[in-house]
Amino acid sequence: MSLAFLINKVFRIMKSTLSQRTINRLTQYYTILRDYFKKNIQNITSSQISQLLDIDETQVRKDIKSINCKGKCKVGYNVVELKAIIENILDYKVIKKAFVIGAGNLGVALSKYSKFSEFGLEIECLFDSDNEKIGKIIDGKEIFDIAMLKDKVKNTGINIAILTTPNKVAQTVCNYLVESGIKYIWNFAPSILIVPKNVKVWHENIIGSFIQFCAIENIK
Amino acid sequence: MSLAFLINKVFRIMKSTLSQRTINRLTQYYTILRDYFKKNIQNITSSQISQLLDIDETQVRKDIKSINCKGKCKVGYNVVELKAIIENILDYKVIKKAFVIGAGNLGVALSKYSKFSEFGLEIECLFDSDNEKIGKIIDGKEIFDIAMLKDKVKNTGINIAILTTPNKVAQTVCNYLVESGIKYIWNFAPSILIVPKNVKVWHENIIGSFIQFCAIENIK
Repeated sequence: MSLAFLINKVFRIMKSTLSQRTINRLTQYYTILRDYFKKNIQNITSSQISQLLDIDETQVRKDIKSINCKGKCKVGYNVVELKAIIENILDYKVIKKAFVIGAGNLGVALSKYSKFSEFGLEIECLFDSDNEKIGKIIDGKEIFDIAMLKDKVKNTGINIAILTTPNKVAQTVCNYLVESGIKYIWNFAPSILIVPKNVKVWHENIIGSFIQFCAIENIK
Repeated sequence: MSLAFLINKVFRIMKSTLSQRTINRLTQYYTILRDYFKKNIQNITSSQISQLLDIDETQVRKDIKSINCKGKCKVGYNVVELKAIIENILDYKVIKKAFVIGAGNLGVALSKYSKFSEFGLEIECLFDSDNEKIGKIIDGKEIFDIAMLKDKVKNTGINIAILTTPNKVAQTVCNYLVESGIKYIWNFAPSILIVPKNVKVWHENIIGSFIQFCAIENIK
């Protein structure tokens, strides 16, 4: 058993014990660490992270302790070290490829979203049924005819789809994705999709996020 | 003290006790309830909700119990009643108006997002600095010159901004939003914004959401 394998196993166990909220916060810490790293700043304190994100400092310390990173009193955490630990735990270095389904404004916006690649997500190409869109290139990614999806899944082995179609056709398109061999659907359409047990859907709840914001800040 | 006032107060107290995760799930239940309502289906069971969302049934029952809605054995919950309770607790009926900052693909996609209005969020108009975009109409909403923002805040009283500009200019634009009187920023740019204490930022963490999906489903 190699050392790399062992380390990987430890990170995997760590990750499985983290809550969804913690994972969410870690990605936010990572955004800051990346900025500090680019600016050649060596250390960061929990108080700095806390202020930037408006998160309780005790929470920040607890999160970082939970991933086994130790800071120094009055100096803080080493930026390179903390960044590397989060990268490893959250698998940012393992590239996951995905298709964007629907080349409307949202599909195009997501295809252009620069942050994805930094976090290990790579958009392979887009699919649409609109002849006027098919063949166009978005940020180096081609828009293919949706009829070609099955072949593309087969040839590339990619099984993640990012669904951005309008609500009305979401379920029909979803059925087609399942038929074509897609196993994971990240759903941006505002509707609940029905899929077989071996397919997993992650409902992106943009409006739910806004409602949380309103509730927490008491926006009226 | 009127009855309406009292009821409103009860809902407000209930809401303040709900966790972010519960609020998120309630918005998902609401999406289903809205579909059932449109299809004239009178009752829904926790098991149906559980299967559609791939959420544990006990969790569904617990959430619905926490907002004081009672189901009947073997019949389930009354769709109209449960829908109304969630609407009231999460303030969907109270319209919140907002500006979209940046008329790129994401800004346009959000401006067209039909679900917002159903959940009480109304996009008033968009702002951009690009002369080619200024004056255009997106789904009935005009794109204004960003230089007009201060006046628009003053004249409309709207103080919520949805920030969709590229990362590079996000902080500069954010400073300008604060100067113009914006108090709440829903930030889609993948960077952490620095704001004064009286301004609140909600960092929309799209990639964090995807990483949770990968972690939960163990996508490699």
